Amino acid sequence: MFTLLKADTATKARRGRLVTNHGVIETPIFMPVGTQGSVKAVSPAELREVHAQIILGNTYHLFVRPGMDVMKHFGGLHQFMNWDGPILTDSGGFQVFSLAKLRKITEEGVHFQNHLDGAPCFLGPREAMEIQAALGSDIAMLFDECPPFPCERDYAADSLARTLRWAARCKEVPTPGMKFGIVQGSSYPDLRRESAEALVSIGFDGYAVGGVSVGEPEPEMMAAIEASEPYLPADRPRYAMGLGTPPQMVEMVARGVDMFDCVLPTRLARNGTAFTAQGTVNLKNSPYIYDKGPIEEGCTCEACRNFSRGYLRHLVKAEEILGLRLISLHNLHFYLNLMWRMRQEIENGTFATFRQNFVTNYRHHREV
Amino acid sequence: MFTLLKADTATKARRGRLVTNHGVIETPIFMPVGTQGSVKAVSPAELREVHAQIILGNTYHLFVRPGMDVMKHFGGLHQFMNWDGPILTDSGGFQVFSLAKLRKITEEGVHFQNHLDGAPCFLGPREAMEIQAALGSDIAMLFDECPPFPCERDYAADSLARTLRWAARCKEVPTPGMKFGIVQGSSYPDLRRESAEALVSIGFDGYAVGGVSVGEPEPEMMAAIEASEPYLPADRPRYAMGLGTPPQMVEMVARGVDMFDCVLPTRLARNGTAFTAQGTVNLKNSPYIYDKGPIEEGCTCEACRNFSRGYLRHLVKAEEILGLRLISLHNLHFYLNLMWRMRQEIENGTFATFRQNFVTNYRHHREV
Repeated sequence: MFTLLKADTATKARRGRLVTNHGVIETPIFMPVGTQGSVKAVSPAELREVHAQIILGNTYHLFVRPGMDVMKHFGGLHQFMNWDGPILTDSGGFQVFSLAKLRKITEEGVHFQNHLDGAPCFLGPREAMEIQAALGSDIAMLFDECPPFPCERDYAADSLARTLRWAARCKEVPTPGMKFGIVQGSSYPDLRRESAEALVSIGFDGYAVGGVSVGEPEPEMMAAIEASEPYLPADRPRYAMGLGTPPQMVEMVARGVDMFDCVLPTRLARNGTAFTAQGTVNLKNSPYIYDKGPIEEGCTCEACRNFSRGYLRHLVKAEEILGLRLISLHNLHFYLNLMWRMRQEIENGTFATFRQNFVTNYRHHREV
Repeated sequence: MFTLLKADTATKARRGRLVTNHGVIETPIFMPVGTQGSVKAVSPAELREVHAQIILGNTYHLFVRPGMDVMKHFGGLHQFMNWDGPILTDSGGFQVFSLAKLRKITEEGVHFQNHLDGAPCFLGPREAMEIQAALGSDIAMLFDECPPFPCERDYAADSLARTLRWAARCKEVPTPGMKFGIVQGSSYPDLRRESAEALVSIGFDGYAVGGVSVGEPEPEMMAAIEASEPYLPADRPRYAMGLGTPPQMVEMVARGVDMFDCVLPTRLARNGTAFTAQGTVNLKNSPYIYDKGPIEEGCTCEACRNFSRGYLRHLVKAEEILGLRLISLHNLHFYLNLMWRMRQEIENGTFATFRQNFVTNYRHHREV
């Protein structure tokens, strides 16, 4: 159940509220990624501390390990990982195409060998939805094929047609929560439109734009959003899958996107990279050796309240787990705080100015 | 400042209180090991949650990285790592002999190449104490040679004589807190006695028994304690360095030891091994796949309050950091809770019974 609370007038930004089986989500929102039943290095209590409202679980990973017998035995992912907030699950399609081996696509689904032990597996629209139902997903994603970039038009069109046939079959499988369709169509605006319109005619609780985090240049990414958004209903949430950097998320909110997920905050943390409003900083860099300041002045996260850049640098250089833990917390806090800020700016009618200032001030790989 | 609050009558167990520059320590106590300025995978706030009263910092590791310029710049180890409780620092001697390369021992100290980049380094009694002073150590350990096991008597005697000459020089170097001497003498009771008596005649704030975690069989370990303890003053704390398993610590408390440090709780956690009152359990084992119970029934640690063995097993198998984090917390909680329990039993005059029951019930590598 989605409520559009306010639509920005200068941009397409939206302030919304999504009610799920496990709680309310204020949008725009970022969803930390809990790939294998754990947001990497972060506990559920810490997710609450950084004000995570919803997390993402990966169907493919949980299907492969620990497996659905275990997930069913524990009564689903919420109980298994002790997270009682909302969970969105992907359908497994993206990982089947990016991680698994020896794939064979048929009308029924995808035969593959899993990346762990090479065991033969099968996922189709019915199986993907049944797995998400067993996980107790609050938002289940349709099973789709996510073509690589670049993609020949003929392949993109054939793939899209099959994904749309799968969408109709996914809709028939009961799940405990909502179902979101996924707009595909690669870099072809007419296919994007066709995809969006077809999904909307079937009717889902929300719509994702897929195939936008597959190595394409940023203009292509934005173009895919712009080619899809006009054909999505205003009264349903929109979700850009697998994105993005902070300025990308700001730009996508300006284009009408409500939800994001991305591994960048935790993945980059493991390399010593922290996000700030001026861009990323790599704490391994030598200027931080003697730095007594926090990662970011004014930040209220656990890392910034308690620890210096110099200490964090030492932890990263010494490969101490506490270092990547603290930077992961800071990065998640940064992402979720950015979402909070955008919600405020939209409510105040000042989002357009915020957007311009943020994107101007933010530089990737800022020099230290 | 050590106060002996109660001496057990049936054993040599002692209940004591040690006042340091950064707070009071109730003994017997276990000290979590913060090798490189971090108790591995655990935050200072979590150390407080598991009721850590004092932690150990490793002089050698901090000397090599980040180096003393950095440690001095940050005003010492407490400020650097944001731990405001007591810190005991070792002297670096043990690591120089176990980790560093191309050592040359002279009367002045030890020339070596550090294990990180092979840079030539030197540590002697003066340097070791000055480093510990710069770290702001609450309890500084004397610089000693820790001979391997087994050790020829001639070498043990020569080494001990030099260590005692170093002890006198260590005493002259000012440090902000207390200084503990280290009884050496390998497996030779007469050398242990000579070492203890010589150190006591110089006079220190406490006394450690060293060379007891160097690969010797457990009877040798206990014999080294028994050969040293009678010659140590009752009004000073005794510390068994680098030990031990839970039953070893119980047996050493029964032999008059007050303080312990050991990497086992955190090191074994990284392998999926958890401590319980019935022995260690390896959560990787398949019987835990469907296990909804906590690591240990009745345990109040964060891991046992919130997570099942089945979930922890999944995290360990999937190499998720949260798994080793939670098991590290449980293991530290177990060690510190065991110390709390021993303090209670000594106060109640029931320690001898507790000791017998605990050691009987505890089995290493318990079958699941």
